[in-house]
Amino acid sequence: MKLVTTNRGKYKETKEIAKSFEIGLTQLKIDIPEIRGTLEMIVKDKAKKAYELVKEPVLCDDSGLFIGSLNGFPGAFSKFTLGKIGNLGIIRLLKGMKRDAEFKCAACFYDGKNFYVEVETSKGKIILEEKGNQGFGFDPIFIPEGHDKTFGEDFKYKMTVSHRKKAFKKLFETLRENFVK
Amino acid sequence: MKLVTTNRGKYKETKEIAKSFEIGLTQLKIDIPEIRGTLEMIVKDKAKKAYELVKEPVLCDDSGLFIGSLNGFPGAFSKFTLGKIGNLGIIRLLKGMKRDAEFKCAACFYDGKNFYVEVETSKGKIILEEKGNQGFGFDPIFIPEGHDKTFGEDFKYKMTVSHRKKAFKKLFETLRENFVK
Repeated sequence: MKLVTTNRGKYKETKEIAKSFEIGLTQLKIDIPEIRGTLEMIVKDKAKKAYELVKEPVLCDDSGLFIGSLNGFPGAFSKFTLGKIGNLGIIRLLKGMKRDAEFKCAACFYDGKNFYVEVETSKGKIILEEKGNQGFGFDPIFIPEGHDKTFGEDFKYKMTVSHRKKAFKKLFETLRENFVK
Repeated sequence: MKLVTTNRGKYKETKEIAKSFEIGLTQLKIDIPEIRGTLEMIVKDKAKKAYELVKEPVLCDDSGLFIGSLNGFPGAFSKFTLGKIGNLGIIRLLKGMKRDAEFKCAACFYDGKNFYVEVETSKGKIILEEKGNQGFGFDPIFIPEGHDKTFGEDFKYKMTVSHRKKAFKKLFETLRENFVK
């Protein structure tokens, strides 16, 4: 099965998860222009476009950080926002405000006929300084519920509880149920 | 000629500009999902999709606010950002920072064969409080160069010098040159 991503780290991570389901994964390194919309809409569109190119089953995913007091900002535009205002911009916006947030990941499978999409979340809190240099993106300012370190400080922990990990796990479970050999 | 927009105000405004070029305008009230990309990419894609629906020449446009010290944020994601963090969010981000900014508008014509795109800007400064309740969007925090009031305080002025006005004027001039009767 092919995972559509230009991100080598994402590929390696997902390959590990797939392995425990006895699913072999290869990387389909193409950059597909994303539409605007919810994470679900984005991954379905991406999977469809990738399928049309390679004509075989594909997997892909998209993630975002949704901050309650900012009406879900930056949401599906997380990557863009991070590139422009960075973690320091998020910290500026949140001074004196409620800092509850959640990461969301939508993982999608498409085989040319059916879509399977699983959306999972990691709830937590944004802190007002960057801590840790592991992970990427908003990891250094996000502390998951029930933990005391940011994803940027404790990447190992992130890898066991993350929204992305949970979404792919659920997706592979669904696929196993639907495609029993 | 059809202007693709769900915004009645935009339609009326553009109709006025078109009139001075003896171009008749009707409103094509459809909501087309936007891609991600530069304003130019967005309007070309939008015009193409609209043309495919109606099979006759179409006009459309897209605008954004580009703030220098925020690396061009919110740019092509202005509408989304405004809906989430509002003008007060922009003010928070800019406290203690350089506040030069520009509005950009891309206006596009497509007749099924050729694209004509004109991009125009209004340079100015963001102020740290909202002033005026005319216009919409970022107008109350934007003071154009060489003026002392925000677009939100002086909408009439906006209508004579705005990025949108300039882009459509240039586009209609180009069309007149290329489609001389």
